[in-house]
Amino acid sequence: MRSRRSVRDYSERTVSEESLERITGAGLLAPSGADRLPFTFVIVRDGETKEMIRTLSEAADVVFHENLAGEVGDWMKARKISTDKPFLTQAPALLVVAGDTRMPYWQESTWISIAYMALAIEAEGLASVTYTPTKTDFLNELLDIPIDFIPQVILPIGCPKEKLEPKDARPEGKVFLEKYGAE
Amino acid sequence: MRSRRSVRDYSERTVSEESLERITGAGLLAPSGADRLPFTFVIVRDGETKEMIRTLSEAADVVFHENLAGEVGDWMKARKISTDKPFLTQAPALLVVAGDTRMPYWQESTWISIAYMALAIEAEGLASVTYTPTKTDFLNELLDIPIDFIPQVILPIGCPKEKLEPKDARPEGKVFLEKYGAE
Repeated sequence: MRSRRSVRDYSERTVSEESLERITGAGLLAPSGADRLPFTFVIVRDGETKEMIRTLSEAADVVFHENLAGEVGDWMKARKISTDKPFLTQAPALLVVAGDTRMPYWQESTWISIAYMALAIEAEGLASVTYTPTKTDFLNELLDIPIDFIPQVILPIGCPKEKLEPKDARPEGKVFLEKYGAE
Repeated sequence: MRSRRSVRDYSERTVSEESLERITGAGLLAPSGADRLPFTFVIVRDGETKEMIRTLSEAADVVFHENLAGEVGDWMKARKISTDKPFLTQAPALLVVAGDTRMPYWQESTWISIAYMALAIEAEGLASVTYTPTKTDFLNELLDIPIDFIPQVILPIGCPKEKLEPKDARPEGKVFLEKYGAE
């Protein structure tokens, strides 16, 4: 958890089938509402499909970025996070995770599963970033995902170009005892 | 991930401050939308407050359980999961996690953080269950949590009365290559 960092810049090294299996295997260990496992995973390695996903994600994000303001906008600008998403074609694999809207607590359960996979990716010595385009219905169409499922994230999976420093927890003003505001 | 099981039956053993600090510390390491950490944690150990939380949670769940049907209803009945929530008073600590609705991707980020804490609880040799009452606004009132925050989960934290078997991943029909439906 401490060493896992969000990575937007990947080397050209490939990712093994075995790593991908262990990563998706971890996602399937997540607890879920009524144990329904309300999610589906599609692994994309095909270059043309990745190009399509990148083009359509960048197009979807244009409006979002035009309307960015305040602290979040400043944070994104400082990190040069723009509508440009090179990691979607750079990473050797994209893992698209979609939640099954027919199930109870489907979104909550799907994000627990995504967290498990983000940690499994780190355990493989690989890296990722939890990227969600502003619109996701193009993924249903492109990957034949039934409309009952809403894509929640595209996890690029690859080797980081450079190793980032582990991060520190910042507990200030986040943890309270008995009542909000009491430390 | 494999050994972590959802536990609804706790022993009377207490939970140390240090364990709780490491658990909430893990939650603060979660990646979040624009790195906003859009959540707040309230640890409840007070017996009367736990009683109130249990009473109000059980009341909130009555309507939900009355309307249960189909597979999910059967699953819950088979596991004797009812509106009765003894773990809310039995566990020595309750960790209430609320998401800050003003932040981008607040719910997604909050559930990554909850997953991190569920795993940290396991790493402490403790157990939990991701329990969300059908209504949660009573928690805002009871714990002084500002209305910008929506409570997402009550994690009971304690020692399991009995150790459950590790679980197996069930990959059937969940992981696809290139397109949904293709294995």
